[in-house]
Amino acid sequence: MRDGSLDPTQRLLRSCRGEPVDRPPVWLMRQAGRYLPEYRAVRGDRPFLELCRDVELAVEISLQPLRLVGTEAVILFSDIFVPVPGMGIDVDFRPGPTVAEPIRSLPQVEALRVPDPRESVPYVFEILRTLRRELAGEAVPLLGFAGAPFTLAAYLVEGRSSGDFGAVKRMLHRAPEVLRALLARLTDLVVGYLAAQIEAGAQAVQLFDTWAGILGSADYRDWVLPVHREIAAKLERAAAPPSRAEAGAEGARGPRTPLILYVKGGSHVLDCMAESGADVISLDWRVDLARAAREVGGRVSLQGNLDPAALAAPPDRIFAWVREMAEAAAPARGHILNLGHGCPPDTPVEGVRAFTDAARALAPERSGTRAVQS
Amino acid sequence: MRDGSLDPTQRLLRSCRGEPVDRPPVWLMRQAGRYLPEYRAVRGDRPFLELCRDVELAVEISLQPLRLVGTEAVILFSDIFVPVPGMGIDVDFRPGPTVAEPIRSLPQVEALRVPDPRESVPYVFEILRTLRRELAGEAVPLLGFAGAPFTLAAYLVEGRSSGDFGAVKRMLHRAPEVLRALLARLTDLVVGYLAAQIEAGAQAVQLFDTWAGILGSADYRDWVLPVHREIAAKLERAAAPPSRAEAGAEGARGPRTPLILYVKGGSHVLDCMAESGADVISLDWRVDLARAAREVGGRVSLQGNLDPAALAAPPDRIFAWVREMAEAAAPARGHILNLGHGCPPDTPVEGVRAFTDAARALAPERSGTRAVQS
Repeated sequence: MRDGSLDPTQRLLRSCRGEPVDRPPVWLMRQAGRYLPEYRAVRGDRPFLELCRDVELAVEISLQPLRLVGTEAVILFSDIFVPVPGMGIDVDFRPGPTVAEPIRSLPQVEALRVPDPRESVPYVFEILRTLRRELAGEAVPLLGFAGAPFTLAAYLVEGRSSGDFGAVKRMLHRAPEVLRALLARLTDLVVGYLAAQIEAGAQAVQLFDTWAGILGSADYRDWVLPVHREIAAKLERAAAPPSRAEAGAEGARGPRTPLILYVKGGSHVLDCMAESGADVISLDWRVDLARAAREVGGRVSLQGNLDPAALAAPPDRIFAWVREMAEAAAPARGHILNLGHGCPPDTPVEGVRAFTDAARALAPERSGTRAVQS
Repeated sequence: MRDGSLDPTQRLLRSCRGEPVDRPPVWLMRQAGRYLPEYRAVRGDRPFLELCRDVELAVEISLQPLRLVGTEAVILFSDIFVPVPGMGIDVDFRPGPTVAEPIRSLPQVEALRVPDPRESVPYVFEILRTLRRELAGEAVPLLGFAGAPFTLAAYLVEGRSSGDFGAVKRMLHRAPEVLRALLARLTDLVVGYLAAQIEAGAQAVQLFDTWAGILGSADYRDWVLPVHREIAAKLERAAAPPSRAEAGAEGARGPRTPLILYVKGGSHVLDCMAESGADVISLDWRVDLARAAREVGGRVSLQGNLDPAALAAPPDRIFAWVREMAEAAAPARGHILNLGHGCPPDTPVEGVRAFTDAARALAPERSGTRAVQS
């Protein structure tokens, strides 16, 4: 761009990779959702999964936050359970995911298929391709996502959402071979699903291991970290070849599609998150951002981490918090402004707008970013 | 005792105060409960709150874990909501606490009474006095407890249990004066309630701030820490005068009744917990015990912190974990073996028994504890 600032895609991808940028980009987890009157209008009384399957509506909903609240990335409107029924599991939403027959035995796991998601959920990739076309002129980055194996397993074993997901933890202790087999199938599913999203145009992908934070750090290291490492390694190999323009900057091999890893309540497993192979770790609001920047920010970029409830505060406080976050994250190799969890339904729209405005109001860093021409 | 080992009361109280002991004592949060067939038999289909009000049944249930699974402390069988209706709040259990009219305004807060709990819930103190008589011959310590103001407020503002307690966090940002007034009333309630429990024979008291861990560390420091400090300071002044025997060791003033503080998911607020004025901090299973011992164990004793789901593991693994925990906590001034959260209903009884057996199997420490005669 003429003034030497970056376009939104460059800003996001460079932040993921720890390359210099003019200021942190901003988007919000669950930025398309019930807090927006326009979302509620489109949704009407349609069942949630129907929305995810309708290409036209899902595209419209995915784009709403870009137009309405000024986010600087668009994320596929979908749900982590979308690819699961293709495995042969009967999932319903009432309103949380509910599994007709919770998975508790090895034969149940062995009966699960690992479908080619291009065949089982073709609409997901159609949504991504359409979004990529819509966004091409604006250089706004498009994100894909998937639920991580442990989080999916937590629901599948428990049967539904639960305060403590005790069933999956008891399985870990009493039937580890069943959990191991289940995680292996889900890992194959997730790798194929994210690779197909990248192929369909996702420029970065986020892995939501929302419930992995229920594990103590030793169990997390044994059961969750290896799964993340496997996904990161397999995705790197599966990633689509870079475009010529991108390849120019880094030679023939080109940059891989960045992987962002989110864990809720993960302040006790920051080290493991940094060792996962993810390019970015997305922090729960209870993680001290300055500490994370100091301890792991040299190895991975950081995303986050305002308390979603803080968007209920007056705009001037939101502006101050955004400045504080940018400052706290400064020692990290890269930072993406975001919440520490999904945006809740009762969030005031003006709070979300203040959040993205505050990001744009951040002064460009004094590092040599002006040299980075687009 | 003749072999120089301590009786259970001494072992617990000394551990709380950071004085030398032969080995860590053991009890379990929610040790009296549904995992015990004998509890289910006593309860039948009685409503939960009816059990809490029936002195004879509550005494029987409180004593069950002592007889059946070998815990080394008895805790009052009750619920954190027991003293709340006396404030003029209509609370029901279905099965979690549900508040008929969630508290959202200052007039609602100002209408709340702070009752003398001896009058509003006399049965609580009758249960404690009866338990103290029952336990006198065995030197088993008796614990009281209360829900902490923030946790009670989280329910009262939300109206019911909730995944994220968004309502209380939004109140913090949009109507801080209402939350401040509510916490002030609840603090008065809790201080009076715990003081009356100490007066009725509780030898240590635990403050459950289960949900305070939903706050980021800055909000926790602003909103939760001052409340804990106020409770600790007021309780110290309110504590009953020591018995002559106890006073002997520490001069005329005598030791105060120890205060134990529990926060679920508190790994990001360990420092604040250590500054709370509590004698013991009770750790969630996700806190690294060795790190806590190193960082705050010089100032406070530690309690915990096995993952409750780990009691589903084979006994030999439970024995190994108990040894590991004792070792990890060794740098702390004191350690009480416990879970990192309440014992879940589907816990195998043999797992609980293995846990307390493992504590008894720990070798006495090599410090000068033999000098500590009972």
